[in-house]
Amino acid sequence: MSQDIFHVLRSDQFDRSFLDELYEITNKLRKLARTKKGNDYLQTLISDKRAILYFTQPSTRTFLSFLNACQILGIQTSEIRDPNTSSEIKGETADDAIRTFSSYVDLIIMRSPRAGLADKIAKLLDETPRRVPVINGGSGKDEHPTQALLDIYTLRRSFGKSGGDIDGKSIAMVGDVCRGRTVRSLSRLMRHFEGAKVYFVSPDTLKIGDDLREDLKKNNVAFEETTDFENIIPVVDAIYMTRIQDEHDKDGESKHIDYSKFHFTYDHLKVLKKDAIIMHPLPRRKEIDVKVDADPRAKYWRQERNGMWTRVALIAKIFGIDKDITKPYGI
Amino acid sequence: MSQDIFHVLRSDQFDRSFLDELYEITNKLRKLARTKKGNDYLQTLISDKRAILYFTQPSTRTFLSFLNACQILGIQTSEIRDPNTSSEIKGETADDAIRTFSSYVDLIIMRSPRAGLADKIAKLLDETPRRVPVINGGSGKDEHPTQALLDIYTLRRSFGKSGGDIDGKSIAMVGDVCRGRTVRSLSRLMRHFEGAKVYFVSPDTLKIGDDLREDLKKNNVAFEETTDFENIIPVVDAIYMTRIQDEHDKDGESKHIDYSKFHFTYDHLKVLKKDAIIMHPLPRRKEIDVKVDADPRAKYWRQERNGMWTRVALIAKIFGIDKDITKPYGI
Amino acid sequence: MSQDIFHVLRSDQFDRSFLDELYEITNKLRKLARTKKGNDYLQTLISDKRAILYFTQPSTRTFLSFLNACQILGIQTSEIRDPNTSSEIKGETADDAIRTFSSYVDLIIMRSPRAGLADKIAKLLDETPRRVPVINGGSGKDEHPTQALLDIYTLRRSFGKSGGDIDGKSIAMVGDVCRGRTVRSLSRLMRHFEGAKVYFVSPDTLKIGDDLREDLKKNNVAFEETTDFENIIPVVDAIYMTRIQDEHDKDGESKHIDYSKFHFTYDHLKVLKKDAIIMHPLPRRKEIDVKVDADPRAKYWRQERNGMWTRVALIAKIFGIDKDITKPYGI
Repeated sequence: MSQDIFHVLRSDQFDRSFLDELYEITNKLRKLARTKKGNDYLQTLISDKRAILYFTQPSTRTFLSFLNACQILGIQTSEIRDPNTSSEIKGETADDAIRTFSSYVDLIIMRSPRAGLADKIAKLLDETPRRVPVINGGSGKDEHPTQALLDIYTLRRSFGKSGGDIDGKSIAMVGDVCRGRTVRSLSRLMRHFEGAKVYFVSPDTLKIGDDLREDLKKNNVAFEETTDFENIIPVVDAIYMTRIQDEHDKDGESKHIDYSKFHFTYDHLKVLKKDAIIMHPLPRRKEIDVKVDADPRAKYWRQERNGMWTRVALIAKIFGIDKDITKPYGI
Repeated sequence: MSQDIFHVLRSDQFDRSFLDELYEITNKLRKLARTKKGNDYLQTLISDKRAILYFTQPSTRTFLSFLNACQILGIQTSEIRDPNTSSEIKGETADDAIRTFSSYVDLIIMRSPRAGLADKIAKLLDETPRRVPVINGGSGKDEHPTQALLDIYTLRRSFGKSGGDIDGKSIAMVGDVCRGRTVRSLSRLMRHFEGAKVYFVSPDTLKIGDDLREDLKKNNVAFEETTDFENIIPVVDAIYMTRIQDEHDKDGESKHIDYSKFHFTYDHLKVLKKDAIIMHPLPRRKEIDVKVDADPRAKYWRQERNGMWTRVALIAKIFGIDKDITKPYGI
Repeated sequence: MSQDIFHVLRSDQFDRSFLDELYEITNKLRKLARTKKGNDYLQTLISDKRAILYFTQPSTRTFLSFLNACQILGIQTSEIRDPNTSSEIKGETADDAIRTFSSYVDLIIMRSPRAGLADKIAKLLDETPRRVPVINGGSGKDEHPTQALLDIYTLRRSFGKSGGDIDGKSIAMVGDVCRGRTVRSLSRLMRHFEGAKVYFVSPDTLKIGDDLREDLKKNNVAFEETTDFENIIPVVDAIYMTRIQDEHDKDGESKHIDYSKFHFTYDHLKVLKKDAIIMHPLPRRKEIDVKVDADPRAKYWRQERNGMWTRVALIAKIFGIDKDITKPYGI
């Protein structure tokens, strides 16, 4: 039996059986959603639920992905995106604001520039009579657990086609692996796949942090760190590109880094393995040449759409309607 | 028979029988909403209606409360919150903007920094072929009638448990009673409760205005004004805390006021009557110590949730589906 | 048989039979929408579809009109209105942003200050596996095709009542005919009406551009240009007022224009033909005296509401449910 889930805060809370189950739900609901009848059915399952998207850090993808996931399940939504239109400017604390949300809705999906805020909020709500689930849609440099879920799903679907799974596969995470929270969240999940290996490819000044390094060692995740992107490309089964996270700069230090060495060019396609894949959490700047988009190994657009479907599955799991999806129409 | 209602503009338009009926609807729909079947039913009653939330003054609570109230009734919504994204920057008048809204929707819920704007708009629409109801969700320092409705509902529910009603009860309104529009709207409704008494507790510079004072006298509402919070706490049945409304400052004058004398502290709980209640329209700053939240007499979080339900009831009444709620499923 | 439609980008893509069919759909769905049963039915037809409104240029009317049109058809919506809350500030291109939207939704409705952007985006999507329809809700000074649709519909409904159609009618377009995109889009559609004539009435410095002039000549649309508004008023069957588009000023040049000569005053009503009509795409500033609003010939408020209904019809046509509207309930 798979674990139950209430809050979704950190990627290390998912175990292997949870991942397996979640992807089964995801695949089943994609099938259901191919027909209008299936879509209409999905919208009836938790039509009595309402969610808020509380995103105080800019976001397009994660925001829209969650919003459309809610809509697929017939959940009605409110959104707070611009703190200027809300009561924060009247001096309210984030604690009070979120307790307020819990008065009105059944699910809080939040993104914040503050590391750890989602955890803190979840704990706070656990002590009130209106305990509602909290999903962390990105917390500072810290965590982005649902991005990790969709990344793993994308890896599995891609490798599955060539007959395998993530066990034994190697993945290069490229770029600002220091401050990219998707890198942190995803690499932590690698512990669930036997023989998997991670290459962290980055400028010297943007290497992974000590805490992540320790965490991977403790959990026996094989990894290597390097600055040499060219030599890694032909070796790996997946390349996970990331943009430089200069919004976390303290003093414009990113300007002094030659990031072009960590760009995936059209020429790189020649040396990439035939069945390897290219991923990117997006948005991209110049990390991947747009000419690469047309190559079948470029999976970042699918990855984006996978994000919506894994989030539908996750919300379904939280509200306990996963059985209604894997065995629809009461069959 | 209770009065019919179209626009909701000022708290003095509600009579006692209206309040009684509204709370009956509120209680019935909360019961209905306990089941998915009941929720789904509520969403069918006016599924052909659409509303706009036109909030040109920052708001979290009132905005979300109304939005979720609409969703509970299956009303689809649009929102205008940031004047920068709308045609106001092209030089359109508020009159034209709102007449525009009435072209598309069946209900206008509005908050504005301008006192009297909601009244003016309602009158304007009354003269057009697309007359739609307007609900005032807060107009400057002036009025906030739906806040008064939820406050009265909270008082009744709380006193009801100890066997009574608002008749004969005393309530202290504390803080910036000069500029807090919730204070104005609520104290005006006190005329409907026999023997009720209001204490206005505030710094000397933030006493109630002459117009409110005259209005209360004219309507025989018993009241007293004082600066001494400590001595009032043990005496009253309800304490209604408010924050300082410094957004209405002309010249930062609020900075010179020692507002800490009008804070409810943890120690105050000891002298408060056993069955008294503590309210706050929220958001709060430091008016109530967060440690007070856990005390069963602290009702401000419930008050917030009561707001959503009384607003559902109000909208139901406006659209004439109240009977479908008090006698659901055609029984 | 009328043409099929996928993207809606420019008004010149509509032919006469398309216009005829669209207005038949519009009239039928307005009839359906008179009852709750009809409204509920409309909401079921494409309840499995989701749309995004991507409006990076301020808009109230067009935005709300499209949003409510989607709601009438049961389409769920997301919105991006403020670029500051989205990934554009992380350096994403508009191309990538819109490809992202197409990952989540089934319809993109967009307004942009950039001329030609909607065309470019539509072409881009045509080359991806997630080709979704794009509706241009206004692109810079360039085009506003759905405004033209609603304008034609308003002309037809008004002239229809006095027994005719647009064939043989004359229309004055007044004001900033140089930069008003509604003027461009509407006058291009005049080619479909035999004997129709357009008067462009404007200050010398705001005359129509050479490209539009050539286009009208090539398509045999009769037109005249003049600066004399007074003499045109008694002559025409329709007057289409526009505001000065000073947001396109390069150096505040609009300030030097005496625009008051292109205002429709209360006195003008006396010389206007009895069955002529007054239109305005709105928002207005002072182009039309508010006292004119009460005259039955003032059609701009109806024009606004017509906009919502023609957009419902257009979306219905795009998704191929027009037959479900003209022959509802499978009859």
